[in-house]
Amino acid sequence: AGPDQRTLPLQTLIDRDGQPKTALRILIEELVSARIEEVGVVVHAGDTATYRQAAEPHTGRVTFIEQDQPRGYGHAIRLGREFVGGEPFLLMVSDHLYLSRHPELSCAAQLVQAAAREDCAVSAVQATHESQLPAYGAVGGDPLPGKPGLFTVETVLEKPTPTAAEQALMVPGLRAGYYLCFFGMHVLTPTVMELLDAGADRPARHLSEALADLARKERYLACELQGRRFDIGARYGLLTAQLALALNGRDRDEVLTTLLELLIREPRS
Amino acid sequence: AGPDQRTLPLQTLIDRDGQPKTALRILIEELVSARIEEVGVVVHAGDTATYRQAAEPHTGRVTFIEQDQPRGYGHAIRLGREFVGGEPFLLMVSDHLYLSRHPELSCAAQLVQAAAREDCAVSAVQATHESQLPAYGAVGGDPLPGKPGLFTVETVLEKPTPTAAEQALMVPGLRAGYYLCFFGMHVLTPTVMELLDAGADRPARHLSEALADLARKERYLACELQGRRFDIGARYGLLTAQLALALNGRDRDEVLTTLLELLIREPRS
Repeated sequence: AGPDQRTLPLQTLIDRDGQPKTALRILIEELVSARIEEVGVVVHAGDTATYRQAAEPHTGRVTFIEQDQPRGYGHAIRLGREFVGGEPFLLMVSDHLYLSRHPELSCAAQLVQAAAREDCAVSAVQATHESQLPAYGAVGGDPLPGKPGLFTVETVLEKPTPTAAEQALMVPGLRAGYYLCFFGMHVLTPTVMELLDAGADRPARHLSEALADLARKERYLACELQGRRFDIGARYGLLTAQLALALNGRDRDEVLTTLLELLIREPRS
Repeated sequence: AGPDQRTLPLQTLIDRDGQPKTALRILIEELVSARIEEVGVVVHAGDTATYRQAAEPHTGRVTFIEQDQPRGYGHAIRLGREFVGGEPFLLMVSDHLYLSRHPELSCAAQLVQAAAREDCAVSAVQATHESQLPAYGAVGGDPLPGKPGLFTVETVLEKPTPTAAEQALMVPGLRAGYYLCFFGMHVLTPTVMELLDAGADRPARHLSEALADLARKERYLACELQGRRFDIGARYGLLTAQLALALNGRDRDEVLTTLLELLIREPRS
């Protein structure tokens, strides 16, 4: 990623269990909760040592892959080709944190379970208001009969305009003005690596383009997870994620008290 | 500092002006607001490059001084001897952030103004409940007649027990159970370097011991500032500091809205 994003996974938060952890560690533990044993992290050239430290105590399962310069998301994924070794893989962005609402499963575990059951590529999605389309990739398709939360994917567009979304991404059953936007995690098949390669001559072939091709080539589903994503790269994104973690964790009461005290002590000046 | 504290100044917050900044940058800007032109930052050996990046865009005024291993606060200050070059200097910890309640002056500017007016060493202090004594250095002394907020310092104790505080640190005029604890910034004279040297044979002579000696040697005052300190090394310290910055800045309404939305969306589970 660019310089602004490169320090995001290194930021420290207090996790739901009350432990201080880097965002990177929280993300690795999200993957571990889905029984993923090996993690590849694509980092900017020279950042490996810093990231290795931030991955503690999970460095034993992490392979760091250096990207010589920011060359787009598609390029970063292709650098992981050797690491994934022709097997299906879970792809996750590192500027989001995830909070599950499922009684037992983390977000990543819900997605992996859906992909294993359906035996195909599955992208996690969230019904998102059209005002947020400029920030996301979005899919069009149809609900899978008898399987709530699952959709066949027919179209994928990166950061669509409202007009393009209305023409190509309407999904039956969603509230008006809502679209299925990417959640930031996907279980993908090796085919995606080939499809990314196919456009490698262009400077920045985006994952969404490769996924649009995937939808024409293979069975490819979208899955609405029980959970929320927090973009820690947004303004006050870290604050919001930290509050959400705290309000869903063992320190809820302590943090609510802190909040109230602050609101009393910091009146409008 | 030790490994846990070493990443604190590198954490990113949104400052009152709405700009994302590292804690280090916010602290440097606190100093700049007090018309301090040159800043020396004592860092762990090997951390200079990372800290230099975190000090942007102020690197031009910053000298980094590497400490080969954590050898105590007093030792870290003595490493700055050449940098301060026999002149008075402002000493500030880097695990606190400061919010002024003064209509015009930052916390550091209030302190520098007091030291300039009184022409002597001055430590910023805050009336602090005795329950927090285990976390701070504290001073005993008397109010300076006709100068509200200023105190002569007669005694300094590091992390005193309640009994020791009651015997040596009672300050007339303070609420019962309250003591003048250090705020994390001091304007000091070169004498302090000599007094730190005097105890250098002991493994970890603390600043507070040298300041206790200073009180016997020179005119030395304490000054209650109009403002608050936020210990970002405490649990939820970053969260609290970020909220306090936001509630006192241009994004107050946006952050209050985010808070309310979160409280609604994250009920007790």
